[in-house]
Amino acid sequence: MAIVLGPNRYGKAETRLVQVTRDGDTHGLTEFTVGTALSGDLTATHLTGDNAGVLPTDTMKNTVYAFAKQHGAGQPEAFALLLARHFVGTQPQVVRARVTIEATGWERLGPHSFRRKGDFTRLCAVTVEESFTQVVSGLKDLVVLNSTASEFHGFRRDRYTTLAETTDRILATEVDARWRHLSDTTDWAESFEKAKDAMVNAFVNTYSLSLQQTLFSMGSRVLESRPEIAEIRLALPNRHHYLADLSPFDLANPGEVFIAGDRPYGLIEGTVTRDDAPPARAEWYL
Amino acid sequence: MAIVLGPNRYGKAETRLVQVTRDGDTHGLTEFTVGTALSGDLTATHLTGDNAGVLPTDTMKNTVYAFAKQHGAGQPEAFALLLARHFVGTQPQVVRARVTIEATGWERLGPHSFRRKGDFTRLCAVTVEESFTQVVSGLKDLVVLNSTASEFHGFRRDRYTTLAETTDRILATEVDARWRHLSDTTDWAESFEKAKDAMVNAFVNTYSLSLQQTLFSMGSRVLESRPEIAEIRLALPNRHHYLADLSPFDLANPGEVFIAGDRPYGLIEGTVTRDDAPPARAEWYL
Amino acid sequence: MAIVLGPNRYGKAETRLVQVTRDGDTHGLTEFTVGTALSGDLTATHLTGDNAGVLPTDTMKNTVYAFAKQHGAGQPEAFALLLARHFVGTQPQVVRARVTIEATGWERLGPHSFRRKGDFTRLCAVTVEESFTQVVSGLKDLVVLNSTASEFHGFRRDRYTTLAETTDRILATEVDARWRHLSDTTDWAESFEKAKDAMVNAFVNTYSLSLQQTLFSMGSRVLESRPEIAEIRLALPNRHHYLADLSPFDLANPGEVFIAGDRPYGLIEGTVTRDDAPPARAEWYL
Amino acid sequence: MAIVLGPNRYGKAETRLVQVTRDGDTHGLTEFTVGTALSGDLTATHLTGDNAGVLPTDTMKNTVYAFAKQHGAGQPEAFALLLARHFVGTQPQVVRARVTIEATGWERLGPHSFRRKGDFTRLCAVTVEESFTQVVSGLKDLVVLNSTASEFHGFRRDRYTTLAETTDRILATEVDARWRHLSDTTDWAESFEKAKDAMVNAFVNTYSLSLQQTLFSMGSRVLESRPEIAEIRLALPNRHHYLADLSPFDLANPGEVFIAGDRPYGLIEGTVTRDDAPPARAEWYL
Repeated sequence: MAIVLGPNRYGKAETRLVQVTRDGDTHGLTEFTVGTALSGDLTATHLTGDNAGVLPTDTMKNTVYAFAKQHGAGQPEAFALLLARHFVGTQPQVVRARVTIEATGWERLGPHSFRRKGDFTRLCAVTVEESFTQVVSGLKDLVVLNSTASEFHGFRRDRYTTLAETTDRILATEVDARWRHLSDTTDWAESFEKAKDAMVNAFVNTYSLSLQQTLFSMGSRVLESRPEIAEIRLALPNRHHYLADLSPFDLANPGEVFIAGDRPYGLIEGTVTRDDAPPARAEWYL
Repeated sequence: MAIVLGPNRYGKAETRLVQVTRDGDTHGLTEFTVGTALSGDLTATHLTGDNAGVLPTDTMKNTVYAFAKQHGAGQPEAFALLLARHFVGTQPQVVRARVTIEATGWERLGPHSFRRKGDFTRLCAVTVEESFTQVVSGLKDLVVLNSTASEFHGFRRDRYTTLAETTDRILATEVDARWRHLSDTTDWAESFEKAKDAMVNAFVNTYSLSLQQTLFSMGSRVLESRPEIAEIRLALPNRHHYLADLSPFDLANPGEVFIAGDRPYGLIEGTVTRDDAPPARAEWYL
Repeated sequence: MAIVLGPNRYGKAETRLVQVTRDGDTHGLTEFTVGTALSGDLTATHLTGDNAGVLPTDTMKNTVYAFAKQHGAGQPEAFALLLARHFVGTQPQVVRARVTIEATGWERLGPHSFRRKGDFTRLCAVTVEESFTQVVSGLKDLVVLNSTASEFHGFRRDRYTTLAETTDRILATEVDARWRHLSDTTDWAESFEKAKDAMVNAFVNTYSLSLQQTLFSMGSRVLESRPEIAEIRLALPNRHHYLADLSPFDLANPGEVFIAGDRPYGLIEGTVTRDDAPPARAEWYL
Repeated sequence: MAIVLGPNRYGKAETRLVQVTRDGDTHGLTEFTVGTALSGDLTATHLTGDNAGVLPTDTMKNTVYAFAKQHGAGQPEAFALLLARHFVGTQPQVVRARVTIEATGWERLGPHSFRRKGDFTRLCAVTVEESFTQVVSGLKDLVVLNSTASEFHGFRRDRYTTLAETTDRILATEVDARWRHLSDTTDWAESFEKAKDAMVNAFVNTYSLSLQQTLFSMGSRVLESRPEIAEIRLALPNRHHYLADLSPFDLANPGEVFIAGDRPYGLIEGTVTRDDAPPARAEWYL
């Protein structure tokens, strides 16, 4: 038996880039938080501290800022691909590059004025090797709520089950979604907007008997409407709303006043996929 | 010399209320996080643990939910006034009640479907005694940015000053604003929206030589347009954006690529007031 | 009626300083997060953007690092006094300086090795004008729990009261304490340690009929043992632990299994003071 | 092509358990935050909302509290195994159960008094199927720092490299470590303490030429000293400390005064493994 180095990678996390584009007096604004991670033959630095194969993480940070100037930040997926291909293409010791981006949304207020949008964060994760490229898009922090059209009953019971069945409850969740693309070229902006809208529309329009049913509906709607997407993973916390018991005060409460719960919460995770999609080549959940 | 009890209060913090209002098939949604704090003669419980004058904080929580059913949550200021007056009016030992509310914004997606807005959080703090009432409204978490029209120069220097003067920089801040009303009745919804819009418009339209100048402009604009407001306090962190130095890579960077800084940050705090406003009767900053 | 500038201040928040002191091969480590805020005649910059009286916040940051080198970071209160006196003493336009410090604790692991302690954060806030100096020390994030020796009953009831009385409950809180010193010279390290220990000992050894009683006991014990302290303010959230109802499973639960609650929570705030203490000259809660 | 359900699971996240054990007048205290996730044939609920195979997440929460009473919370790994085996053993539709626990540390202050420790959080993740069991232990939030004995030079350079070489720097990281056990029985308490100590000792005693070298040293030391552990994964953010440039103030700064950085930060991730360890049967990173 020997003790050996297993899988490893290194990089720069949370490089914060803001780019102003100037089209005459009208400015554009892009804000990305970029993470890079490189893999390859890194045994020497781990075993002896020989850094000859280690491009500094500081260099990765510099590259993010320099590439923004040279190529423009643009769409997250395209910028991540540029960066990942650069590292694999110029560093012979690098076998794989993974670049992740969180994009902050800004709403225009004037020619050079903006307000930060806080309704969700757009995400992407790109993995590049010499022989393949994988692009994952996604979003997080999107909170949606249906105040009715949600039931939960007919569930399995055991000795520890006390939950009452319900035919009318609030269904609320904070969407965390990641979807894997079939190729590395598409209209990233349109693809993202339409995928997001498909998910939200499915949430709104699904009469729900379980959050799992809503999840599958959301995922299916994305795949039905977006042929460029191979599969989608959703993690949906069930943000419980408990009907307040007002009976001690002789008040009825027919689905009006709720206690918003913090913890614990249900957590429903699932993948919806095309049965003919090629398998993922790299771990693809962000 | 004796050791004595000084100022004190107690209450329930962060009671999380969600109210669904049902107008036929079209639902409304209100989400408040409510804090209550009561003051009065509380010496006994502090000195001996005699709780005869202590209404439990659990009761305050119950009252929030019961009042939502009985009166409707409605506007934050009105709901806070209802609660505060209830405690002062029904509990003889309570001299002062302070109720604070954080209101989460929701955007309609359908008759019973909603998406959480994340662009800011609306606030209020109401203080009620038998002889006076004070209402403060406000907001936090509103991030705005001008990509130009901001300079900073002509400042004072000492031995430790190294900052370069600039005639073109990004000006960005996360607005934390609280304003004190002259009375306890107004159209709270309209007052809030118009005050917020006045602040944002002032930020957008002020050619800024300092964040202080922008602050005063924002506060003045609110008071000019809203006669019901006595004074306003703004806390404006200067969210620094540092121009990336791309000269080692032979790249010019004329105000395009920025490093978004985290810490430290400048913090500008100031009050704008009417010179004939009656003084605040209670500590009014939330 | 005119719209005028009211109270204001500006400064640099969250300047993060780490100082290594080298005594031969044995190193010391100090970590401070420093905030500075200056007040004085700042009308010009607010009204016209004339910055002639504005020492940049960037300069304040530089001063923190330079002073650490010149004088050593040392005890938080002493370092804050140095900085505050510097700004008031060298900037004629500055009438008041307020410096706050959060000190991160580190535990020694070796001659030059350390582990961060996470049990509490030490705080101080110093206010300096030409004619007076005020020093406040404190701590936050200290969580303590008694698993018994806590009762709550005999409280006031109204229509909305449903809470059951109890003669045995968990009492847990996250201590936020600030205490005002009578002078600006003492052994800051010893004073802090002993004040903290007095608070913790009082929490441990008070048989509690209310969290208010525990609060007063904690504050009194500090004043009794530390003559250099004029008064102390405590904010004690009541971290509720709810006895799990295991009766549906035919299990008794005599004070053993608890649900730790998040929100809402009780919040008890109070001051304990010497009746002959001179009044505070500046708002002293951090 | 058809759209189908892929991998999925569901459960209850962040169930907060506090258990008091009473040995006469001396109490013990255990605090766990428990997550459960079940997998099996869940197609029906996803496709049609038929919940006949869905044990409610509320039941999982109840089971946590009931098991604490029946079996005692005890060591995290043992309690997680109990829960996971219960779900797989009693629910025929459940093929796999995964239980994760975060354990909060408490330090004794008296027979029934405790202070929360904040130096790290202990973790475990247990996966149970009918045919195999996998136990992972770990910790997070442990911050360690060496003020010297760290160099970084000889690294690879490209067009975007500007980093200076150094032969003396601060090395600081926040350890996130997970280790997979070879079996499902051991002395969990001792195993955890010794693994933690081995990691910390390796950090302290490694003269470091790269954070990767330190990582491998930490992992190796754990495997060398703990035969029950198959492999270990470490994620080590490089918490950068930048030497403050005091030259504008004519002050030397030989490794004394540092700016603690927030973002970006290097992130080093790696696995150290026994070359004869059986492969993991389930995704094992928490």
